[in-house]
Amino acid sequence: MTELEHRTPDLAWNAWGTADAATPVSDQVRGLLEAFLGVEHRDTPSVDRSEVRLGETRLPAEARAALAGIVGDDAIRTDDETRLLHSGGKSTPDLLRRRAGDAGAAPDAVVLPADHDQVCAVLARCAEHRIAVVPFGGGTSVVGGVEPERGGFTSLISLDLRRLDRLVAVDADSRTATLQAGLRGPEAEALLAEHGFTLGHFPQSFEHASIGGFAATRSSGQASAGYGRFDAAVLRMRVATPSGELDLGRAPASAAGPDLRQLFLGSEGAFGIITEVTARVHPLPAEVESEGWSFPDFDAGSAALRRLAQEEALPTVARLSDETETWINLSAAHDVGEGGGPGGCLLITRYEGARVAVSARARALLTEAGGEPLGAEPAESWAHGRYHGPYLRDALLDVNALAETLETATTWSRLAETRAAVQDAVTEALAEQGTPPLVLCHLSHVYPAGASLYFTVVCARAEDPVRQWRRAKEAAGAAISRVGATITHHHAVGLDHRPWLVDEIGELGAQVLRAVKSAVDPVGVLNPGKLIP
Amino acid sequence: MTELEHRTPDLAWNAWGTADAATPVSDQVRGLLEAFLGVEHRDTPSVDRSEVRLGETRLPAEARAALAGIVGDDAIRTDDETRLLHSGGKSTPDLLRRRAGDAGAAPDAVVLPADHDQVCAVLARCAEHRIAVVPFGGGTSVVGGVEPERGGFTSLISLDLRRLDRLVAVDADSRTATLQAGLRGPEAEALLAEHGFTLGHFPQSFEHASIGGFAATRSSGQASAGYGRFDAAVLRMRVATPSGELDLGRAPASAAGPDLRQLFLGSEGAFGIITEVTARVHPLPAEVESEGWSFPDFDAGSAALRRLAQEEALPTVARLSDETETWINLSAAHDVGEGGGPGGCLLITRYEGARVAVSARARALLTEAGGEPLGAEPAESWAHGRYHGPYLRDALLDVNALAETLETATTWSRLAETRAAVQDAVTEALAEQGTPPLVLCHLSHVYPAGASLYFTVVCARAEDPVRQWRRAKEAAGAAISRVGATITHHHAVGLDHRPWLVDEIGELGAQVLRAVKSAVDPVGVLNPGKLIP
Repeated sequence: MTELEHRTPDLAWNAWGTADAATPVSDQVRGLLEAFLGVEHRDTPSVDRSEVRLGETRLPAEARAALAGIVGDDAIRTDDETRLLHSGGKSTPDLLRRRAGDAGAAPDAVVLPADHDQVCAVLARCAEHRIAVVPFGGGTSVVGGVEPERGGFTSLISLDLRRLDRLVAVDADSRTATLQAGLRGPEAEALLAEHGFTLGHFPQSFEHASIGGFAATRSSGQASAGYGRFDAAVLRMRVATPSGELDLGRAPASAAGPDLRQLFLGSEGAFGIITEVTARVHPLPAEVESEGWSFPDFDAGSAALRRLAQEEALPTVARLSDETETWINLSAAHDVGEGGGPGGCLLITRYEGARVAVSARARALLTEAGGEPLGAEPAESWAHGRYHGPYLRDALLDVNALAETLETATTWSRLAETRAAVQDAVTEALAEQGTPPLVLCHLSHVYPAGASLYFTVVCARAEDPVRQWRRAKEAAGAAISRVGATITHHHAVGLDHRPWLVDEIGELGAQVLRAVKSAVDPVGVLNPGKLIP
Repeated sequence: MTELEHRTPDLAWNAWGTADAATPVSDQVRGLLEAFLGVEHRDTPSVDRSEVRLGETRLPAEARAALAGIVGDDAIRTDDETRLLHSGGKSTPDLLRRRAGDAGAAPDAVVLPADHDQVCAVLARCAEHRIAVVPFGGGTSVVGGVEPERGGFTSLISLDLRRLDRLVAVDADSRTATLQAGLRGPEAEALLAEHGFTLGHFPQSFEHASIGGFAATRSSGQASAGYGRFDAAVLRMRVATPSGELDLGRAPASAAGPDLRQLFLGSEGAFGIITEVTARVHPLPAEVESEGWSFPDFDAGSAALRRLAQEEALPTVARLSDETETWINLSAAHDVGEGGGPGGCLLITRYEGARVAVSARARALLTEAGGEPLGAEPAESWAHGRYHGPYLRDALLDVNALAETLETATTWSRLAETRAAVQDAVTEALAEQGTPPLVLCHLSHVYPAGASLYFTVVCARAEDPVRQWRRAKEAAGAAISRVGATITHHHAVGLDHRPWLVDEIGELGAQVLRAVKSAVDPVGVLNPGKLIP
């Protein structure tokens, strides 16, 4: 096995994650889907791998030779297997398309540079040869962020960063670590653990997503209440662009003009490729306390979280499910259909390391706010399944159902209005198509000024599920935009949220993005069609 | 008194703040300056107001009429008094120049728009008539940020924002407030106090500086350990530019692409004029605890602060003086020359509101780190004089001495090296000119990954004090740049730090700034010569 092969994980081409972690839906759940959502009992499996249509590879020999001169010939892959694994991310329309056998947009080649300098050289060469470049980290985008959109270019490569997998440096005094962009979550954590540290960044995509992706999409992890968002953890970053390189960030804080890091954080590969990140790290927690709480309703639970945030008493993890999600999760954890389990809303709390010091104060505030402690079990049960959610989507797609998640964030004063607006819009858009949905909601990223809202939508699958999805997505986006919330709190913009970005930043904001783009990528080869309105 | 006159504070044209707050240096201090720094006993007063040379006003009648059509004739001032008060900020070279009678660069007119729309219209008109615009808030820049540099334009106006002085809205649930840019610190606090809130932003310039200035310069206050930097408090902002307006920020956090707020925070009027800011506010603290601590040396004290920051136990104010500053301050507080007072390094701590909850844990950590509690007195004495520092500079300029402050920030692991490099460079540059200085240092903004270092430099005045200052400044900037620290943690870039910005962000970073500039200010009328390399 060569060094390069060693680094190709065994990921599913038509589903989330790895095939061995998939779990089919039980007959009992199928029964409930039929009873509650009218999902007709029918299997809707993916086509077989052998039936997938990939386009021809169109990388001109001259361009290939130029790239091979940089990365070596064995680091340019044009085999169908590798191209298929880079033919998109993990958004619901991505998966629906590939499950139907369509991978026609697959990149012409997958290029695997070994280091920052090779990334710089590849980008310069691609600009020269007019080859579109889609950066590829974990490939877990759920918003079309790594779709191989050609944007008018004839050829397109996927630039896979998996070989940039080193822990470059640890500064134990300053509690920072410098990590290469291609490191996956678990690899990064394993390397940091040798030094006694953790990033504390555990998004649902943790098992597969990469450091570069966390930065390029402003990822936020399940422990964001304690460790913060990934963008806030980044002190320094190296970025390769077709116009040259950037090394940004010299201090924990600065007044030296605009913060240019903030242009590349969230730039989703459209401005450059983040090759290295210096981020805050935390000691591996010696102590962990977990506790579930029950609140009479979502408003009471969110008011309690608001107090914790505003009184500087947040746990490391704080996660409040609405009534429906609470019912579903507790039923699933115990025995489906047992008769509902406890009512109200479940709050998961978890205190790690230094944050354990606030737990007594937090508990007092939660009690005062009407919460009832449920012991450790619900929090441990949540932790056990914390990365499993996306596999459930695949299982539902197999049984004639459709599942999708979407999220936003807003201020506390607009939280209830925003939640209702999104729920109503999605429900109406799907009901109109004859597939009334179940909409679950939780609140999982909490700030003194507001919080995120995360929605899970499940319904019967329509004749044309991509069209069905699109109509629901458009309704949700319009509702979010109308109430003045952000179109995405942690999923990024990609293809799917691009229509609403101009609402959010205005036409002049879009012009600013285009001006930056023309400075760093004048030919426009970087990730065409994503992000920029 | 008209509404407009009412809003012109009685500021000194040749010194910090208001004339009534100035305090001359005592004979005893003069004696010490002579003994320790060789400052010859000689008065070096400012010229009289009547001797100041102002250039002619060069605003074409047509342009004036166009501007008057927007703001009204009485909101355009061309009298010498008003022009003089807008002829620069409060940097040491600014003051030296005006004290010598030179205000030749004064703006042709001072324009006082009433609201956001008028600011937008004025900027569009200035771009059309090719008139340079220097935004003017409190006018407290210590880095040449409001110098009337014409940048090739014949005419220049100072755009004074003092009439934008409303508290627009308070969102008590989300703990945010929307404030107009022209509000000064005390005015903003008074308005917020009516609702029970505070910004918690108290830089040394608090009494005079404005909300817009805080945002445009990434200001950091003395209570930053508890309330954070101003840039981090800004959720939403409105910006007027010659190309149109921006309304940025929809949620406490977002993954909707690059954070464009971060381009305008720190943009120092070069990209647009911030007219309104929605920022986090905090309940007025019901409880305040103050305590001084003594540490054996600066390294021990900074290690203690590092621990507080990394273990989430920071007070609201944390401020560590080095041995020299401790000696000077304690001597001054008691009786100068008493024989040194206690040795070691003084740490000021202050806990406000919710932060009182960490004080017991913080005290235990400080004790463990070798600190000795000194009771409340040193902290209360510091609080009493917290805004007075800049007046001392004026008093020293009057008695043949020179005083200046400068600051940087770096990671904990580079703190000692950075401190030594700056101290050595400044000392050498001034000793070479025959005026060996006293250099004091304190650490006053603390983060988990590092801290700021703030230096106060006092020496005898040379023949040409501007040249003397410049050589010392160049030595300090080169040293900061060489050790990889930031050229400014909270004073901003302005004119004085511009030579080092390109080191910090690279040539491509500078090109990105220029690209943004050309999108929002294609004619280049906004604050010429500042910030952008």
